[in-house]
Amino acid sequence: MVYVTRKAHFSAAHRLFNPEFSDEENERVFDKCNNPRGHGHNYTIEVTVAGEPDRKTGYVIDLKKLGELIDREILTKVDHKHLNFDVVELRGIIPTAENITLVFWKMLAPHITEGKLYKVRVAESDNNYAEYLGT
Amino acid sequence: MVYVTRKAHFSAAHRLFNPEFSDEENERVFDKCNNPRGHGHNYTIEVTVAGEPDRKTGYVIDLKKLGELIDREILTKVDHKHLNFDVVELRGIIPTAENITLVFWKMLAPHITEGKLYKVRVAESDNNYAEYLGT
Amino acid sequence: MVYVTRKAHFSAAHRLFNPEFSDEENERVFDKCNNPRGHGHNYTIEVTVAGEPDRKTGYVIDLKKLGELIDREILTKVDHKHLNFDVVELRGIIPTAENITLVFWKMLAPHITEGKLYKVRVAESDNNYAEYLGT
Amino acid sequence: MVYVTRKAHFSAAHRLFNPEFSDEENERVFDKCNNPRGHGHNYTIEVTVAGEPDRKTGYVIDLKKLGELIDREILTKVDHKHLNFDVVELRGIIPTAENITLVFWKMLAPHITEGKLYKVRVAESDNNYAEYLGT
Amino acid sequence: MVYVTRKAHFSAAHRLFNPEFSDEENERVFDKCNNPRGHGHNYTIEVTVAGEPDRKTGYVIDLKKLGELIDREILTKVDHKHLNFDVVELRGIIPTAENITLVFWKMLAPHITEGKLYKVRVAESDNNYAEYLGT
Amino acid sequence: MVYVTRKAHFSAAHRLFNPEFSDEENERVFDKCNNPRGHGHNYTIEVTVAGEPDRKTGYVIDLKKLGELIDREILTKVDHKHLNFDVVELRGIIPTAENITLVFWKMLAPHITEGKLYKVRVAESDNNYAEYLGT
Repeated sequence: MVYVTRKAHFSAAHRLFNPEFSDEENERVFDKCNNPRGHGHNYTIEVTVAGEPDRKTGYVIDLKKLGELIDREILTKVDHKHLNFDVVELRGIIPTAENITLVFWKMLAPHITEGKLYKVRVAESDNNYAEYLGT
Repeated sequence: MVYVTRKAHFSAAHRLFNPEFSDEENERVFDKCNNPRGHGHNYTIEVTVAGEPDRKTGYVIDLKKLGELIDREILTKVDHKHLNFDVVELRGIIPTAENITLVFWKMLAPHITEGKLYKVRVAESDNNYAEYLGT
Repeated sequence: MVYVTRKAHFSAAHRLFNPEFSDEENERVFDKCNNPRGHGHNYTIEVTVAGEPDRKTGYVIDLKKLGELIDREILTKVDHKHLNFDVVELRGIIPTAENITLVFWKMLAPHITEGKLYKVRVAESDNNYAEYLGT
Repeated sequence: MVYVTRKAHFSAAHRLFNPEFSDEENERVFDKCNNPRGHGHNYTIEVTVAGEPDRKTGYVIDLKKLGELIDREILTKVDHKHLNFDVVELRGIIPTAENITLVFWKMLAPHITEGKLYKVRVAESDNNYAEYLGT
Repeated sequence: MVYVTRKAHFSAAHRLFNPEFSDEENERVFDKCNNPRGHGHNYTIEVTVAGEPDRKTGYVIDLKKLGELIDREILTKVDHKHLNFDVVELRGIIPTAENITLVFWKMLAPHITEGKLYKVRVAESDNNYAEYLGT
Repeated sequence: MVYVTRKAHFSAAHRLFNPEFSDEENERVFDKCNNPRGHGHNYTIEVTVAGEPDRKTGYVIDLKKLGELIDREILTKVDHKHLNFDVVELRGIIPTAENITLVFWKMLAPHITEGKLYKVRVAESDNNYAEYLGT
């Protein structure tokens, strides 16, 4: 089993906010991430696929095609967007790194047909990231 | 003359948009950067001060103090904010990297009392940055 | 289960040295890391916590609070210090990346009350790092 | 059990090409990676060894020695070479990141005598890497 | 005057070799960079344009368009190529970082119609780069 | 004129301290950088040489040789050392980034015989660096 990883980048705005919370509660819980107009990040997404390299190509999955898949299924929907308003798949979800990672897994998994989706990592800055391995 | 540089980071949302343009013109000129709800970046700011090292301290300017100055004069105003709405100094200004750099220069210059402000660089991503040297 | 990671930085001096070894043995085993006056690094620490995102906040653990915890329990004790002399928790321990990682795990584990401490990584340079997963 | 990792760098040319394929098939499968004269990368290799830190040295394995081992067993054979022609161990193997990782594992494993080889990662760019854990 | 910079990436093979030199001379001068089959790099190109931000757009030059220009004039010609054989503009030129930088300047300069081309930087690794400012 | 730059790395301890100051003054001026046992950094040095590429080699200066020069004249003297005690050239000098940069310029300048030394940059962390251009 070999694990291959493709990294991609997008820029987006978000706001951490729970509509069921009072303003004070949102302020207390989410602090500066609760700025009403939102703030933003250069996000990095890393997608890892596990499998055996194909004998004829040497690929677990062609990373160029995995890049195109990430582009089509994720980046076109989130790049240069506001994650709280512009992304159907994130409706009603607080866009923490944790939740974004879970949603991206669901968006990608059905499309990985060579090898098996093993891990999705989403970093919102150099210092903060979340990872999901499917369970 | 020695040049010393301090780097700092902030995360913010912005939208490129000229209210004097029609919607079509904004769309054509600013493309995906014109998303109505905005998008965002992890910005990096680099501030360079030029001067002779002080004989007693070996400092052109104490970089820890320069860091505190950047924090007080810039970061507290822009970090986790929406640059089109939340920052007084950017009111009425299209928040391109170029314009942000010019505004940050003005915000910092009066406070540099050891050495001389030499350059401000603002990067909105790993691939894009603007610099201003005061003239 | 989602894994969230917070990265932090500190600068410290250290010397690799075993008082039970002869000078020649220390020299042979630790080579240039045995310089009597010590040398130093910009260390990076990465702390990973595993758990289920809270339904109301979307957080496994608030990474800003995890950052404050790392700051309080680790950085205030080691940043700008000499690891062989200035840190109570490292007394009598050869400050290799391996041992520092084990000590940091012990310093952090009792304080992680949301989710579960999953991994501690300590890098002493871009090319060298150690990781501990608790067993 | 502590995991220690050493990173190293080399620059090499390669071409993705299967001699059993027709020219059209090579073109279709490997696309621009099939350029007849080859192209190249600054590769990064990360080698992770697992073990218990030795009581007397605090080392799982001396990372300086692990670095010398990587240098001797890998870098001298691949750095500034063309991977399709100049490396005995890669003869007859399509030099994808996956296959390079598997070959490097075999080249290194017999020489790791302190601790146990746990993982080999080979990155061919900032966005693409492969990992092998021995099974 | 504001300076804006766009960074881009390509992967290519090259060989340092002067056909007027004897084999021994090539070996002595270019050392491991003279490997007959070539080696390769992940190159980084940074293009800096100087000008006054346009009042209506806030741009010296739209960095997205500068990116497309670099892509069209440079990357399509050099990415995943062998610089000694596949690039018309580099024919008869020893592809050192210095010479590549000079050639890229000539390839880009006629196409910069907003602002003025100020600097081209080409890095062949994290540790080596060349810059040209037009004189 | 082309500018070529070589980057190198070393790890060292230092303490900011002026023996003419009282303890209180050292504490007030140098703060945590005045820790008596010292602290340390992974330093980065960048050396830029300006010149015209040689017609026969395409080099301003062979960057591999520049790297060996930096290694011989600088790194062997400062790597894994304590800058306040172990380096003859830094005796009696407060080892701020500014002063280290000035001293490294003096140590390198006489040995640059192809092209002309243009700039020395010394970074003590990702966020702090000093540069000297010879005047």
